[in-house]
Amino acid sequence: MWQQTLKQIQPVSQMWMEKARNRLDNLTKPKGSLGELEKIAARAVAVMETENPLDKGKEVFVFVGDHGAVSDGVSAYPQEVTGLMVRNFLNGGAAINVLARCAGATVSVVDIGMKEDISDAEGLIKKNIKRGTENISKGPAMTRKEAEEAINVGIEMAEKAFSNRAFMVGTGEMGIGNTTPATALLATLLPVDVVYVTDKGTGLDHEGVKRKTAFIKRALEVNKAFLEDPISALAAVGGFEIAGICGLCLGGAARRMIVVVDGFISSAGALVAMRLNPEVTDYLFFSHQSSEKGHGTFFDRENIRPILDLGLRLGEGTGAAMAMQIIENSLSIYNEMATFQEVGIEPGA
Amino acid sequence: MWQQTLKQIQPVSQMWMEKARNRLDNLTKPKGSLGELEKIAARAVAVMETENPLDKGKEVFVFVGDHGAVSDGVSAYPQEVTGLMVRNFLNGGAAINVLARCAGATVSVVDIGMKEDISDAEGLIKKNIKRGTENISKGPAMTRKEAEEAINVGIEMAEKAFSNRAFMVGTGEMGIGNTTPATALLATLLPVDVVYVTDKGTGLDHEGVKRKTAFIKRALEVNKAFLEDPISALAAVGGFEIAGICGLCLGGAARRMIVVVDGFISSAGALVAMRLNPEVTDYLFFSHQSSEKGHGTFFDRENIRPILDLGLRLGEGTGAAMAMQIIENSLSIYNEMATFQEVGIEPGA
Repeated sequence: MWQQTLKQIQPVSQMWMEKARNRLDNLTKPKGSLGELEKIAARAVAVMETENPLDKGKEVFVFVGDHGAVSDGVSAYPQEVTGLMVRNFLNGGAAINVLARCAGATVSVVDIGMKEDISDAEGLIKKNIKRGTENISKGPAMTRKEAEEAINVGIEMAEKAFSNRAFMVGTGEMGIGNTTPATALLATLLPVDVVYVTDKGTGLDHEGVKRKTAFIKRALEVNKAFLEDPISALAAVGGFEIAGICGLCLGGAARRMIVVVDGFISSAGALVAMRLNPEVTDYLFFSHQSSEKGHGTFFDRENIRPILDLGLRLGEGTGAAMAMQIIENSLSIYNEMATFQEVGIEPGA
Repeated sequence: MWQQTLKQIQPVSQMWMEKARNRLDNLTKPKGSLGELEKIAARAVAVMETENPLDKGKEVFVFVGDHGAVSDGVSAYPQEVTGLMVRNFLNGGAAINVLARCAGATVSVVDIGMKEDISDAEGLIKKNIKRGTENISKGPAMTRKEAEEAINVGIEMAEKAFSNRAFMVGTGEMGIGNTTPATALLATLLPVDVVYVTDKGTGLDHEGVKRKTAFIKRALEVNKAFLEDPISALAAVGGFEIAGICGLCLGGAARRMIVVVDGFISSAGALVAMRLNPEVTDYLFFSHQSSEKGHGTFFDRENIRPILDLGLRLGEGTGAAMAMQIIENSLSIYNEMATFQEVGIEPGA
């Protein structure tokens, strides 16, 4: 399925981009004085190929997976927390629920690779491929087939959002220990030395970071034979939720939706999609720069300016939900401001 | 009046700050993982001395003034634009109207020092003190009495917002050429050499910036005798709208409201208030870092981290309206997230 989706992705329309920039230059403000907001609006219009989308839906997907690596002490939290947090998402009490409500977005929670089986939980989207990844320091996290299946789940979610009349989707995730596979994946795909991208995750101390760095180096060494193409690298050192995010990016781009990428983990998933087809990048709106060191490295290397920089390091899609509001602000500017002609001012510099 | 207001300003409650931080640490997320959002929420709660304000209003004030300096070519726009833009504000077609709507805030437009008399314009708040400032390169912009009157107008607007049940006010301004007085004021109050804070405003070229730098140096030289205290510095090289913003900051702090400071010009007004009483700073939420070079210098020197960095350089209160949404997001997080106890998770690191 993902190969099909990849073929459907077209470059973002330069004609629409041009048209959008012209309109922005005619609004009652000095040219370019709304900075990033204007760039966001122009790209959003070009992605959608419409100035005023009829579809008003916004949907954040929280892909949930567990990691074999956790037994090696790369996280400050035990794996049991995954199930409890998923119930919290489904009850509407987590940060992503609150911020999605602020953004007027719905939250969909997808079990894509949870260890614990909580199939009884109401509202959970059940797409479990396997009950957690294998330990990446000993071999591949997933088989290539499993990784492809997980990407397909992400694409399926983009299709679901599309049929729910969404014009914007947000990526999100939950997985104890998942900064470790995300870091490994960034290191191999950017590529960059592990030390430049490894940081404390949700709560490691200095010793913990050293242990994590060594762990990731070992994982990349053990999986060396599988790091040649983006999909096998994802399978080797990634995770189910990261693959789901990759799929959501691909599916969103294929459907000309605005894809809002959350933080550090989401960027790793997005990078796989970008490596499969660089044109995907134009559909992606990177919501924020995480306080996780490697995220800055990612943005520098890929020459991307994230929308927000609020020192977030939670994941779940929290940054994406906040950035959705900024993107909507930019579309309101585009559609609701008066033009120079309308108010009788000569356009200035 | 402003002396009275100054006396009413109390330090922000440390007891409430502590209480707020405790609650934030008990919400279902790793401690501090929502970064700036948590700091904003804690400070907002401490400012208001309540977790859930009953007053739900938000009001952005656009203070409008003209500048004698404009005849010396420090701006790319003619002064006639002021009146046309004010009518645009009143008709709801400007950027601030759009973004305030996004934030659920009302916009109040105050003629505090416009050259043109447009008293016929419906909805305009008429507080004109004088029809534009004097040319600061030849002497003081305003008399001390005029500056004090303008500060009082700002305080009056804070009182108006307070009686309209606002818990949050935003500063905004419009004034052709007003990056020039704002730059002069920042240079003298920080203090810092003029070259480190002078930039292109809304559209100067390289030669224009050189001319503007020389102009500001001349203004500071000519007004040297008046730069001793914050109020006379404001009178000497400031502007009516800048004084109004200073007053709004003082009045907002006195009424324990969240004061959201817009961009470069607003920061100059806020800095006068901060120099009158450093405790005012804790009531101020700096919305964004402008692309105007001097704004970065201001934040560095005052050790402040602005909420957004979107390359805005429009003013009007546009950054303040956007930051209001982030601040409300942070208060929603504070009030709506589940605690660890509620979901049965051991708080982690």
